[in-house]
Amino acid sequence: MKIYSKFGILNKEIEIGEVDYFAKEHPLKLSSGVEISNFPIAYQTYGKLNANRDNAILICHALTGDQYVANQNPVTQKDGWWQFMVGENKPIDTNKFFVICSNVIGGCMGSFGPKELNPKTNQPYGSEFPFLTIQDMVNAQNLLIEKFGISQLHAVIGGSTGGMQVLAWGVLFPQKVKILIPMASSYRHSPQNIAFHEVGRQSIMNDQDWCEGDYLKQNKFPKNGLSLARMTAHITYLSEIALQKKFGRDLKNKEGFSFSANKDFEVENYLHYQGNKFTERFDPNSYLIITRAVDYFDLETDFSGNLSSAFLNLSQNKKCKVCIIAFSDDWLFPASESKKLTKAMSVNNINVSLVTIESDGGHDSFLLRNEILEKTLNGILLEN
Amino acid sequence: MKIYSKFGILNKEIEIGEVDYFAKEHPLKLSSGVEISNFPIAYQTYGKLNANRDNAILICHALTGDQYVANQNPVTQKDGWWQFMVGENKPIDTNKFFVICSNVIGGCMGSFGPKELNPKTNQPYGSEFPFLTIQDMVNAQNLLIEKFGISQLHAVIGGSTGGMQVLAWGVLFPQKVKILIPMASSYRHSPQNIAFHEVGRQSIMNDQDWCEGDYLKQNKFPKNGLSLARMTAHITYLSEIALQKKFGRDLKNKEGFSFSANKDFEVENYLHYQGNKFTERFDPNSYLIITRAVDYFDLETDFSGNLSSAFLNLSQNKKCKVCIIAFSDDWLFPASESKKLTKAMSVNNINVSLVTIESDGGHDSFLLRNEILEKTLNGILLEN
Repeated sequence: MKIYSKFGILNKEIEIGEVDYFAKEHPLKLSSGVEISNFPIAYQTYGKLNANRDNAILICHALTGDQYVANQNPVTQKDGWWQFMVGENKPIDTNKFFVICSNVIGGCMGSFGPKELNPKTNQPYGSEFPFLTIQDMVNAQNLLIEKFGISQLHAVIGGSTGGMQVLAWGVLFPQKVKILIPMASSYRHSPQNIAFHEVGRQSIMNDQDWCEGDYLKQNKFPKNGLSLARMTAHITYLSEIALQKKFGRDLKNKEGFSFSANKDFEVENYLHYQGNKFTERFDPNSYLIITRAVDYFDLETDFSGNLSSAFLNLSQNKKCKVCIIAFSDDWLFPASESKKLTKAMSVNNINVSLVTIESDGGHDSFLLRNEILEKTLNGILLEN
Repeated sequence: MKIYSKFGILNKEIEIGEVDYFAKEHPLKLSSGVEISNFPIAYQTYGKLNANRDNAILICHALTGDQYVANQNPVTQKDGWWQFMVGENKPIDTNKFFVICSNVIGGCMGSFGPKELNPKTNQPYGSEFPFLTIQDMVNAQNLLIEKFGISQLHAVIGGSTGGMQVLAWGVLFPQKVKILIPMASSYRHSPQNIAFHEVGRQSIMNDQDWCEGDYLKQNKFPKNGLSLARMTAHITYLSEIALQKKFGRDLKNKEGFSFSANKDFEVENYLHYQGNKFTERFDPNSYLIITRAVDYFDLETDFSGNLSSAFLNLSQNKKCKVCIIAFSDDWLFPASESKKLTKAMSVNNINVSLVTIESDGGHDSFLLRNEILEKTLNGILLEN
């Protein structure tokens, strides 16, 4: 399906792949109370669904990720974000498994999102788009899974925001999952992380082209604000060690300081590059909607401050296995939170294991090649 | 001396206290090569200089601090930033010591800074103000110390950016110091910290009222940008534990989420408050100039990658004593950097000690009451 749309600052027709419409007969009720119907979900699949329909793996993408896990991304023209992980004879082997990944609702890669046209007005939703929760995203994914006639997923895997979706699957659909693999994630967004999200949102909303969220209607785009939001976020995705190894205090211009506010250091140059690149593919309203959904995620409060209660229903699924993966130098979702999550599951006698991988890639480690990660995923998916 | 000036978004006449003019006959050459002459330094003193002129303590303020250490700040109308630390019978006892603190050049509290009038144009310097280094700030402080006829300071004390100034005193004027106390500081600004500074600067420069730095000439003020820069920085001054203890995930409105980009969480509300308050007292150009000076600070590179060489001259001052203070949960200037600094001094046989204080106040711990900090400072100043 071709979509004529604003992908970041680009404004062109792009073939976006599979898109289906859901909730045609019964609307989906969002956490906010808003009901949505006949909304699109864009997705990619890899491998073949077997006759028993029991070899499906759902991969949940992270905050600004998308459904292009293992094939060329039509917007960036680059490899999928987990190209090395998913495919024939790869750790998540598509000779054996049917892998599904859908763009989250609220996103900007073809699924129901703020940059898409509101059929009632024939204008982009913009500021009218409803705010969501992680649970809303998972409820939408469930409609896609139902469409495939899958009654139980072999596994649900995701990192960061994707990991929150994995946990929400365990809470909302405990009988529909067999293996849960949340990576570099948490049972709730910490106050420090909410704070970082808020400065990102403010970066966008301070931009003079923000237009109260209706920039597309006014043919504008808050590029600098979106870029700045990404720059700040990007710092939190790495680690001090990673930045030290990658750039140290290297200067862009070897002749010395510019004595100005220009980019003197390689690390500044890198951040600006990342920020700019991001504006070519992402929608500012999607950034607001999804960061907010992540801020709202808190299984502890949802279950009256008792995290283990969140997994009581999951513990009734005796065949379910959980493998929690944390990275040692992830300071956005520190390993200590994965440890707490592991305990909350194990008190319910859930078959849970925690793998803490020594890393120097920071939070983004789950997106990088890592032998232990690859072997762990491969091993756990093939067990039993 | 009364100064009619823009203190942050305020635009009114404020009595700023002592201001003297320096480099009247010989200009001061800045690191950039620019020469400045007949420039003001605004300062405060507490206690009395004794006849031998050997009881003076220079306190160096942090990034956005000022000379109002222990008396009411005329702009904020609040107590000085170290009111509990400096005064009669306080840990830094003004019955015994003569305490001096000057606003750094580049600042916005009466010293030579970008919001002051350029006598050549009778307009604020704005974008014409020269970029500086920490060493430039210290060279200016030295002129003030000379004015008092002080040949050796009993002590130089400062936290964070102030701590860098303390170290620069040891490097530039090793015979003029007796006790050096850098707190929550480092021998160089890390790439991660440069990155955070850069997003702060971009926040200001993205503001539609930035006017390429000449907002004052155009009677504008990049308030939102300055506020956002402060919000981001403020996250780094605290710690995850501090934010968790202070706010957790508490909601502003106990009835639940707003399902909007409004401030839902107390931590967001707090950041906005801090950001707004900051705009009432600080100049956006000063923020650029001073953060840049901090980014440029790197004693290791200055001495060809060998940090201990930086302190060779200091080691010739056999009476000099250094007490480095670090805080356990400071992630902006981690204790590990203070440890490296301590080693680089001790290999030169400098009398150096490292005090790492268990804290939950993050980087800002040096600004908070802490019995160990107070006793350490008091003790070391009274020794010998």
